[in-house]
Amino acid sequence: MEKGALLYEGKAKSVYLTDDENVVWIEYKDSATAFNGEKKAEITGKGRLNNQITSLIFSKLHNEGVPSHFIQQLSETEQLVKKVSIIPLETVVRNVAAGSFSKRLGVEEGQRLSKPLIEFYLKNDDLGDPLLTDDQIDVLELATKEEVAVLKEKALKVNEVLTSFFKELGIQLTDFKLEFGKDESGEILLADEISPDTCRLWDMETNAKLDKDVFRRDLGNLTEAYENILQRLGGPSHV
Amino acid sequence: MEKGALLYEGKAKSVYLTDDENVVWIEYKDSATAFNGEKKAEITGKGRLNNQITSLIFSKLHNEGVPSHFIQQLSETEQLVKKVSIIPLETVVRNVAAGSFSKRLGVEEGQRLSKPLIEFYLKNDDLGDPLLTDDQIDVLELATKEEVAVLKEKALKVNEVLTSFFKELGIQLTDFKLEFGKDESGEILLADEISPDTCRLWDMETNAKLDKDVFRRDLGNLTEAYENILQRLGGPSHV
Ligand SMILES: Nc1ncnc2c1ncn2[C@@H]1O[C@H](COP(=O)(O)OP(=O)(O)O)[C@@H](O)[C@H]1O
Ligand SMILES: Nc1ncnc2c1ncn2[C@@H]1O[C@H](COP(=O)(O)OP(=O)(O)O)[C@@H](O)[C@H]1O
Ligand SMILES: [Mg+2]
Ligand SMILES: [Mg+2]
Repeated sequence: MEKGALLYEGKAKSVYLTDDENVVWIEYKDSATAFNGEKKAEITGKGRLNNQITSLIFSKLHNEGVPSHFIQQLSETEQLVKKVSIIPLETVVRNVAAGSFSKRLGVEEGQRLSKPLIEFYLKNDDLGDPLLTDDQIDVLELATKEEVAVLKEKALKVNEVLTSFFKELGIQLTDFKLEFGKDESGEILLADEISPDTCRLWDMETNAKLDKDVFRRDLGNLTEAYENILQRLGGPSHV
Repeated sequence: MEKGALLYEGKAKSVYLTDDENVVWIEYKDSATAFNGEKKAEITGKGRLNNQITSLIFSKLHNEGVPSHFIQQLSETEQLVKKVSIIPLETVVRNVAAGSFSKRLGVEEGQRLSKPLIEFYLKNDDLGDPLLTDDQIDVLELATKEEVAVLKEKALKVNEVLTSFFKELGIQLTDFKLEFGKDESGEILLADEISPDTCRLWDMETNAKLDKDVFRRDLGNLTEAYENILQRLGGPSHV
């Protein structure tokens, strides 16, 4: 497989074309951003950690019957994935109240929800990724009702698998963000990344935050937290 | 009917008990507020106009088979209504993009939506009335799925009646906010007010805004705009 032209440079990853039109080459960067790009930093090791963690999680999901765009890890910071056309909705799953949910709705951070909650946000940095209701998605024709139902079903399945997977590792999966895309046949496929950048992962013993909130809220050393996750997932130790 | 103790003092109305435990006495005030209370003014005549307009609109809805809490107008600024326990959801119906919807989602103000859109906002001034998805309402147990379905159905029916009513008067009903409550038997009843404070009403010829945006955006004389609406509704002219 040959790496081709840069297709898209995002905040956390660069996406390159390959000689296969249905495959893209993703390089994880060391950039950290939060609050819609207002807070920024370069953190050596973050790209490697997120690439390795995402690869392990997508492999786990594959083994549990949840397909994704993931094909294979190429290097410490690179992976090959199926090219998809990203659906412009960020799909958030919440098990426990935290972050913007707690703040907006006045629910104390840490309170378990009566059941897993799926939310959709418009993937649009200029608008600050606004929350969308199902009816807004429908009226604005951002996705069909059938597609929204598929996204919810897939997100709940990912949540089931990952909640018990992380639980075995002593980690509470508080919430996470997924992106989905359509492959060349039009099928909806789980894409993007699943990493401490896109999940809230709380140590079940100490309640320590092992995710991007370390960066957002200045809670300590980000790479130590991410390395902790990688080690629990059985990842390679870094020399 | 006798006016009793003050039950609740809101931003636009005062609610008093009466000698009938199922009836409250509402007095419309001259206070204008916007942006969650950040902008405030006293506007002589506003209470009278909103009371008269709301009374005419609830009467019209009654005649078209849409029940509400409205019993009768008592004076220029007072009315009797059935006492309900207000459901803490503001139900918004949008026919045309405007206001916060346009701003949040990047849809140009004035663009007609592909169909009427129903939105729910948590009625909580401290939280700034945040938008709620159906799933959030469900998980937070703010209302049951059945209740949400009833609210949507009733809101769409109100929209149908009022859209064509205002159209006959040369006014486009761009959007509006409703409140519902439960009466003593537990039935869901349309409540609160329907006035230029709670609707966006645009003159179909001139596009002039004949609603609270006159106050929010400093577009001119508020009582003139509201008086214009009252006159088109066939209301009494003020001496
Ligand atoms: N399989 C894929 N095919 C095409 N694009 C993808 C795929 N997976 C993820 N992407 C997109 O790659 C871009 C780069 O990722 P990222 O740096 O996280 O971007 P962003 O700044 O939008 O968060 C994002 O727009 C993401 O949606
Ligand atoms: N039929 C009713 N029974 C009891 N309360 C009502 C009824 N109709 C409206 N209300 C409530 O009366 C209060 C006063 O109205 P308003 O001044 O508009 O208040 P707010 O400041 O909450 O907008 C509101 O809380 C409204 O929900
Ligand atoms: Mg991203
Ligand atoms: Mg009110």
